[in-house]
Amino acid sequence: MKYLLHRVFNVGSFFPTLNMPQELEPDLVDAILHEVARMAEEVLAPLNQSGDSSGCRFESGRVLTPEGFKQAYDSFADGGWCGFTGAPDYGGQGMPKLLSVCLEEMLFAANSSFALYPLLTSGAALAIQAHGNPSLQASYLGSLYSGKFTGTMCLTEPQSGSDLGLLKTRAIPRQDDTYSIEGTKIFITGGEHDLTENIIHLVLARLPDSPAGVKGISMFLVPRQLLNENGTSGANNQVKCGSIEQKMGIKASATCVMNFEGSIGYLVGEPNQGLACMFTMMNYERLTMGSQGIGLSQYAYQVARDYALERRQGRSPIIDNSGSEDASLLADHPDIRRMLLTLRGNLMAGRALTFYTAMKLDVCKFSDDRDAIESATVLVDLLTPVVKAYCTDRGFEDCVSAQQVLGGYGYIKDWGLEQCVRDARIAQIYEGTNGIQALDLLGRKVVRNQGSSIRILVTEIEEFAARCKSHESLYRKASVLKRSTDELMSLTQHLVKLARSEPAAVGVAAVSYLNLLGTVTYGYMWLQILANANFDEEQINGENYLEGIRTAGEYYFDRMLSQVRFWTDTALAGLGPLLAMKSNQL
Amino acid sequence: MKYLLHRVFNVGSFFPTLNMPQELEPDLVDAILHEVARMAEEVLAPLNQSGDSSGCRFESGRVLTPEGFKQAYDSFADGGWCGFTGAPDYGGQGMPKLLSVCLEEMLFAANSSFALYPLLTSGAALAIQAHGNPSLQASYLGSLYSGKFTGTMCLTEPQSGSDLGLLKTRAIPRQDDTYSIEGTKIFITGGEHDLTENIIHLVLARLPDSPAGVKGISMFLVPRQLLNENGTSGANNQVKCGSIEQKMGIKASATCVMNFEGSIGYLVGEPNQGLACMFTMMNYERLTMGSQGIGLSQYAYQVARDYALERRQGRSPIIDNSGSEDASLLADHPDIRRMLLTLRGNLMAGRALTFYTAMKLDVCKFSDDRDAIESATVLVDLLTPVVKAYCTDRGFEDCVSAQQVLGGYGYIKDWGLEQCVRDARIAQIYEGTNGIQALDLLGRKVVRNQGSSIRILVTEIEEFAARCKSHESLYRKASVLKRSTDELMSLTQHLVKLARSEPAAVGVAAVSYLNLLGTVTYGYMWLQILANANFDEEQINGENYLEGIRTAGEYYFDRMLSQVRFWTDTALAGLGPLLAMKSNQL
Repeated sequence: MKYLLHRVFNVGSFFPTLNMPQELEPDLVDAILHEVARMAEEVLAPLNQSGDSSGCRFESGRVLTPEGFKQAYDSFADGGWCGFTGAPDYGGQGMPKLLSVCLEEMLFAANSSFALYPLLTSGAALAIQAHGNPSLQASYLGSLYSGKFTGTMCLTEPQSGSDLGLLKTRAIPRQDDTYSIEGTKIFITGGEHDLTENIIHLVLARLPDSPAGVKGISMFLVPRQLLNENGTSGANNQVKCGSIEQKMGIKASATCVMNFEGSIGYLVGEPNQGLACMFTMMNYERLTMGSQGIGLSQYAYQVARDYALERRQGRSPIIDNSGSEDASLLADHPDIRRMLLTLRGNLMAGRALTFYTAMKLDVCKFSDDRDAIESATVLVDLLTPVVKAYCTDRGFEDCVSAQQVLGGYGYIKDWGLEQCVRDARIAQIYEGTNGIQALDLLGRKVVRNQGSSIRILVTEIEEFAARCKSHESLYRKASVLKRSTDELMSLTQHLVKLARSEPAAVGVAAVSYLNLLGTVTYGYMWLQILANANFDEEQINGENYLEGIRTAGEYYFDRMLSQVRFWTDTALAGLGPLLAMKSNQL
Repeated sequence: MKYLLHRVFNVGSFFPTLNMPQELEPDLVDAILHEVARMAEEVLAPLNQSGDSSGCRFESGRVLTPEGFKQAYDSFADGGWCGFTGAPDYGGQGMPKLLSVCLEEMLFAANSSFALYPLLTSGAALAIQAHGNPSLQASYLGSLYSGKFTGTMCLTEPQSGSDLGLLKTRAIPRQDDTYSIEGTKIFITGGEHDLTENIIHLVLARLPDSPAGVKGISMFLVPRQLLNENGTSGANNQVKCGSIEQKMGIKASATCVMNFEGSIGYLVGEPNQGLACMFTMMNYERLTMGSQGIGLSQYAYQVARDYALERRQGRSPIIDNSGSEDASLLADHPDIRRMLLTLRGNLMAGRALTFYTAMKLDVCKFSDDRDAIESATVLVDLLTPVVKAYCTDRGFEDCVSAQQVLGGYGYIKDWGLEQCVRDARIAQIYEGTNGIQALDLLGRKVVRNQGSSIRILVTEIEEFAARCKSHESLYRKASVLKRSTDELMSLTQHLVKLARSEPAAVGVAAVSYLNLLGTVTYGYMWLQILANANFDEEQINGENYLEGIRTAGEYYFDRMLSQVRFWTDTALAGLGPLLAMKSNQL
């Protein structure tokens, strides 16, 4: 992280260009990272396996989190981490998203279930900060930032998942400018728990006579307990948890069925603008999910690497075995190296991509430069679905690969990697399935604007690649990357045209297109990483760290970037049978 | 299954060419399939989720299987299924492997944990039948076939997994031609349980003064209870279960640490030939694991398909929505179709490949034609690692895709697909990890014989493709398949040469090579499937079954076969950094 922040993305120059609440000198950045790491290692990681084993319990309407979670949460809140990116006016720390993704990645790596309680809270606070009226802000933000309250997003209903237009929860105006909320929401992360005295729900619901579909959705703030005049939590607000889900993973995160039975709600933002309000924070949340993929596979990588550096089986053809009776280290077997370097190739680039996208979000929020904001906005919109889907798909696959390195031990609970796989799986599903992300990318972010957004990104990549060509060690890589952007643009143009006559082409090509763009942007990140590595300087930590980066980068360009061709080949392949298929033939 | 058996592989002509213990008319084949299906649906499937939830329990040395397993096992054994492929001399039914893979796929689809108890027994019985002396056969085979006893394979030790040469368990000769077995085995499937009165372990161990490595391993039969003279189970034999593993999945299958504490063992086969004896049944077992991948993804496909045909979200661009306010079926969204057709493409071909390989095993066992046996042996050796690894890798991925079709519901236990994913994961690991399978394929089965085996398979494929070219509807597919075998052979020749100067190339290319061969053989299976479908005839079951097959086949050739290029491109890519990497750079 420090290497990327300081060397590749140069925060020492970047932060001063922003109009942030506080100065962030490089030393302070490092101090923050170390403090987060300490908390992740000492407070959260020790509860990861035990939390998975015991899970949350549901007892007569209340949810009990696993042993130790309450203390850990209090310690986390006391550290001020709940308000890390919050507005300083209400006690938030006003930190940039770039540091927040570091925090998030570490939380997910250490304890994904735990991470979701404060991270959903940040999302809710962000929406209130952006769209709530001053009175709502004054009443709730302070307690959300301090961790006294947590927050949730209540979107999904049994009949309404990917298609929010189908939601039925109603908001009936009362006489006092408040609303009576009635309906059932499902899959509500942290909908009920025992960590805090109050839980603040952001609920999507329909006002009477609102238009059908997504244009008739409004957002409401619905506290579990109504607030007393002095700001303390008071009377129950008819918000009831009906049950919690038994899930594949993230078992210590309570996934709740929430029943709103005439609960009092406060309108957030304008009527019928609920989806737009929700989407304010969607870019933040979806970026966060990318960090879950990176964090869990980072952890999985560490376990697999350590195992491969200790376990001896068979004789490697790579190293000199003469004079030794010992079996070789797993790490010296080519196929194990293939897995470890693939993880490395994805991890470093994936982390870089979350950092890169976070920086663009920071520009949008803190910059005074309108041109910079404009182009950053375009890139955030374009890259958010890529980070959400590509980083979580690779994250899951990489956890599976790391598990494979351990052989039979990978399947056993004690070793932790099977939990990684189960916990990583959800990130491909929630906050919009990865298929939905791909449709969002290709449909809304590419085809709808005739590829103008992607052209901005590709221009940036090509300019960077052109500059790298003057370095001998980067020439070939820059050339390969340029060829991949050529393929990307040529497919883009084809799809933009084709979509006019065949709208289904977007759905057919979406997942391939997202994978193609992900592979190319990872290549772009690797080129940036390699361009900023000065291999002559002394080793970092005495561990040949830079040489390791170079090897992993070589590997990415030699082996992994060739997926570009595959995704291009497959994008529209099978269009005929896909359209021809009839339901009764399945 | 019936379509493949009767139409594609034409068992009506095939079985009469074999010298089997009984005649198997097509009607009898169907009756057997229906009986297996009934048992799988009515007896085993109902225990699948409950078995997963409760798992096995370990209590003071004993293992308790989940509620209902004992009754289900008794009913399974009473049906004669434990001795399905067993030798009729000892009460086995002498059925061909071709029908056994049907049985196995259904067992795994219905209840993978349960399936392992009888399937490991079959493997043990097979080894005893092939290598045990008449006295051992007479004492044990009858009870294994009747299901009165179960069997295990005791290979793995804590320090010895993929590398069996490292195993330490000792066999010390006693005065009476028996041996005293001492050592600890781990990951022993069904090592201890409460289903039967006795458990027969086949244990790999070292005789005193035996050579180091795999050449000094012998196989011993070690019963949990010694047999009385009348064949009943008697005194304890110092075989102790130390604990059972907490695992990601197959939780109702007991995975045991087994301690042999001076247990009496009987030599099976010749001294120091233990590995060869074990490998007799390896081809059978590994083929069986392929059926686990197929079975679980078949089940997952059915759940995902049914969900997609019921759940409505969003508006599909494919179908005519005019005049309807309803959201479209998931099954009408292109990206959902992409997932379902990908499953279908793998499932049908994967099942066909297990059938095809089983038929070759049947030729080896039952044919009188020496030439046929010779070429079948070559193909079995070549295809076994492909079936084991490719079918289980695709099986796992396909379970994950099916889970994705269900969105959030896929992550919830009630819907069953998260269990499919967890249960399918083990098949990539046990019976030799899929990485080991790839090394076995490319190293032992291809490079070592200079590609002569693969040439036999490719010649068969190319001859078949050439015949198909005369059919208009198959011309393009046959041509594409021919190009893919060209790529396969050209890579093969390159690898055979390269391996002489760079032995590590085998390890670098192995997984890509296996995937390449898997993709090509699936294409071969699809061509056979399509060539045997007469699309003019009336619908089967009134469900447009044949049209569905045709669409899925089109899809395979249009979209999925293009992986050939990817696997060819990647086979040797990254060789440089893979070899250059140093452990301390990881």
